[in-house]
Amino acid sequence: MKKAKIHVMLKEGVLDPQGKAAHKSLESLGYKGIEGVRIGKYIEVTLADDADGDRDKLVREMCQRLLSNPVIENYEIEWEK
Amino acid sequence: MKKAKIHVMLKEGVLDPQGKAAHKSLESLGYKGIEGVRIGKYIEVTLADDADGDRDKLVREMCQRLLSNPVIENYEIEWEK
Repeated sequence: MKKAKIHVMLKEGVLDPQGKAAHKSLESLGYKGIEGVRIGKYIEVTLADDADGDRDKLVREMCQRLLSNPVIENYEIEWEK
Repeated sequence: MKKAKIHVMLKEGVLDPQGKAAHKSLESLGYKGIEGVRIGKYIEVTLADDADGDRDKLVREMCQRLLSNPVIENYEIEWEK
C-alpha cells in the first residue's frame, strides 16, 4: 500500500472566508496575537500495491479532475515513507 | 512569526462520508486500485512574534475549543521551521 498525502489550499489572493471566520472566532474567544488563519483540505489516498504506472502522475490527475479546483486552489502531494 | 500547521482528521472508526464520496467518484471516473480516501482539514495559524507564553499549549487549546471537534476528530500540530 502506498499513501498519498495531499494538501489542497486556496491560492494566494483568493478570499478564504472559512479561515477569516475562524480567525474572528478565535479573537472573540480572547486569543490575541493571531496574524492569520488559513483553512484547506487534507486528503489521504491509499493505493493498492498493484496499482500500475506512475503513481505520482495518477494522483496528480485525480487532484486536477476531482480532488481540487485548479482555478482557485493549489495542491501538494507527498508520499508516506 | 510562527506558523502552526494543524491536521484535523476524523478518528478511526468514525464514518467519513466525504472521503467515501470522493472514493466512489474516483472509481466512477475509471481509477482502479484505490484502497481508501480520507478527507480532513488542514489549518495554518500564524502567530505574531510577540505572542507570549507556551505557543504549543495555546494552539492545542484553540484546537480543543474551536478548530476541531474532539469528540470525533483528532488533531496534530507541527511548527514550521
